[in-house]
Amino acid sequence: SQDAAGEEEEDPSIEDPWQDEEYFGNYGTLRLHLEMLSDKSRTEAYRQVILSNSASLSSKRVMDLGCGTGIISLFCAQLARPSMVYAVEASSMAEYTRQLVKQNGYDEVVTVLQGRAEEIELPEQVDVLVSEWMGNCLLFEFMVESVLLARDRWLRDGGTMWPSSAALTFVPCQADSYYAEKMAFWERPYGLDFTPLQPLAQQEFFTKPKFSHIIEPCDCLAAPCDVISLDMYTLQVGDLEEMKGQFHFCVEKSGVFHGFTAWFTVCFESLEAGGATVELNTGPNSGPTHWKQTLFMLDRPVSVCAGDSISGTIVLQRNPVWRRHMTVTLHWTIKGSTDNPDNSQAGTKSFPMWR
Amino acid sequence: SQDAAGEEEEDPSIEDPWQDEEYFGNYGTLRLHLEMLSDKSRTEAYRQVILSNSASLSSKRVMDLGCGTGIISLFCAQLARPSMVYAVEASSMAEYTRQLVKQNGYDEVVTVLQGRAEEIELPEQVDVLVSEWMGNCLLFEFMVESVLLARDRWLRDGGTMWPSSAALTFVPCQADSYYAEKMAFWERPYGLDFTPLQPLAQQEFFTKPKFSHIIEPCDCLAAPCDVISLDMYTLQVGDLEEMKGQFHFCVEKSGVFHGFTAWFTVCFESLEAGGATVELNTGPNSGPTHWKQTLFMLDRPVSVCAGDSISGTIVLQRNPVWRRHMTVTLHWTIKGSTDNPDNSQAGTKSFPMWR
Ligand SMILES: [Ca+2]
Ligand SMILES: [Ca+2]
Repeated sequence: SQDAAGEEEEDPSIEDPWQDEEYFGNYGTLRLHLEMLSDKSRTEAYRQVILSNSASLSSKRVMDLGCGTGIISLFCAQLARPSMVYAVEASSMAEYTRQLVKQNGYDEVVTVLQGRAEEIELPEQVDVLVSEWMGNCLLFEFMVESVLLARDRWLRDGGTMWPSSAALTFVPCQADSYYAEKMAFWERPYGLDFTPLQPLAQQEFFTKPKFSHIIEPCDCLAAPCDVISLDMYTLQVGDLEEMKGQFHFCVEKSGVFHGFTAWFTVCFESLEAGGATVELNTGPNSGPTHWKQTLFMLDRPVSVCAGDSISGTIVLQRNPVWRRHMTVTLHWTIKGSTDNPDNSQAGTKSFPMWR
Repeated sequence: SQDAAGEEEEDPSIEDPWQDEEYFGNYGTLRLHLEMLSDKSRTEAYRQVILSNSASLSSKRVMDLGCGTGIISLFCAQLARPSMVYAVEASSMAEYTRQLVKQNGYDEVVTVLQGRAEEIELPEQVDVLVSEWMGNCLLFEFMVESVLLARDRWLRDGGTMWPSSAALTFVPCQADSYYAEKMAFWERPYGLDFTPLQPLAQQEFFTKPKFSHIIEPCDCLAAPCDVISLDMYTLQVGDLEEMKGQFHFCVEKSGVFHGFTAWFTVCFESLEAGGATVELNTGPNSGPTHWKQTLFMLDRPVSVCAGDSISGTIVLQRNPVWRRHMTVTLHWTIKGSTDNPDNSQAGTKSFPMWR
């Protein structure tokens, strides 16, 4: 259905460029909330943030933006003594969130507000703005914009953002089984030549990034590299239009370079000076999450050797019409090591995600 | 997206009740064809039918209805010497099918016709009508109707249908992990009471059948039972409106009765009298297929004991408006064994699939 959406006629005049009906409609059903709640790495990270700051949260005012079923707000009430938690949810789930708050006996502490971040009114500013706004490749769906708008309206000077910072990480990788399944398959299935379908396969499977890819540490050809870093205190909505990054990888083992894999990490600073930072890392060396990783396939695999370098740039260009979408453009140069200086080539590819 | 479709406003006056644009649009992309071709149990079964009948197929005229990429037609040309194979495909894939036929050097034998089964014109009748028309729960999407119409128009008297017969099989089963994941989860996640969401979970996860369920043989509480049997020579389009079946199971081991699981088997009779029948069985005791199995969850699990009986009826009611959809209505009575005669109860549940 995501592919189908990408192929629809694009007439923004008759359709909402934020696709809010679809977006909030999805969050009005239980499926996505169950997926997020069942994601222990994600949910336990937020729980740990509240738990390790429980003393400092005492008497603090908290806003939980896009609270969904209210799990983070409930953690605040369960594990700390904030003076008030404003749990903000735009989808129709808000009605159930209110029931859950009551059922757990926290309706004195947690106030559920149904509405969009841009429209809700709070009686006061807050000390802490917590939100789980991250999407595939960190920014997809651009819920982060709502968080920044809420920050500018409702976070007091000197208040705390959770997450406090975020980074997008890339690594050049092998993707043998995905390549075999989607492309090499057509070579000679059942003794027949199906190669005329390979251009179609390329178009259908390698044009857009692959969400929900799982990369094993052994598929990484180099040490991962942060390509984009966001400071949640200084980031501006306008910065989201175009974000640029660079990478320089030193290939650590010979193999087939099929593409790049991306994931993100977010950090939650302590409310106390010198307190420990909590980190949620969605990469291959951390626990699995519902985000998994995002794979960007090259059009043709390239053999690389230990010692080769892969360097280049990444540009995340937000779609000027479809505001929840972006295009990721990668440019890379592979340089052979001094042992192997002839193996040099460059490439560029733009991945709509999804429009 | 299937769930979303089920919740749309239903106004058949402005939408095609056959949803052909969506249906054939999906088959114009590679994803579904790759899934079917990668399904070895399925594809090898058709290959085996052609191979084991290769001598008898000599000089025969074959129609391959809904041929997709043309794999069955290509098997005919690769493994036998039919006089002609008419490969019929309504979706835009037909253009590629033509290329594949040519690429493999079989364009003298295989003629690709793009069009709907109801509309295409052949220059002659055929001796064999082969098709892979089976959907979830055997009938879903009702491609079988197109096969029956093609049979009545284009199969010569005494010609052969492949498959020749089909059966839908049911079994009462445990579904512990699905129940735990979708329903028991809400009991006390992270030390909080989320039970107010259980009615929503029931509505969202148990109202419709679950496609792509994988049942392990050990989850079957009794020996499976065929509830619907179709003879592809005598079946009429009108018979599809309402199909009724019965079941009587003797519980073989004590456990939790969460629901019923369904799958299907099709048989391909030999062209030679006394020749071996080829069977494609999509149940838990056969190789995995892309259809997997279909799970129908009860609203509340019931504990059952070895010796109890579970009997009842199934009705498949085709949707009078949305012609690719149906409702499956189950009625069951559980009777305790003579050891345990008090454990008796009955239930009824209708499952829209999807409309
Ligand atoms: Ca998210
Ligand atoms: Ca099928």
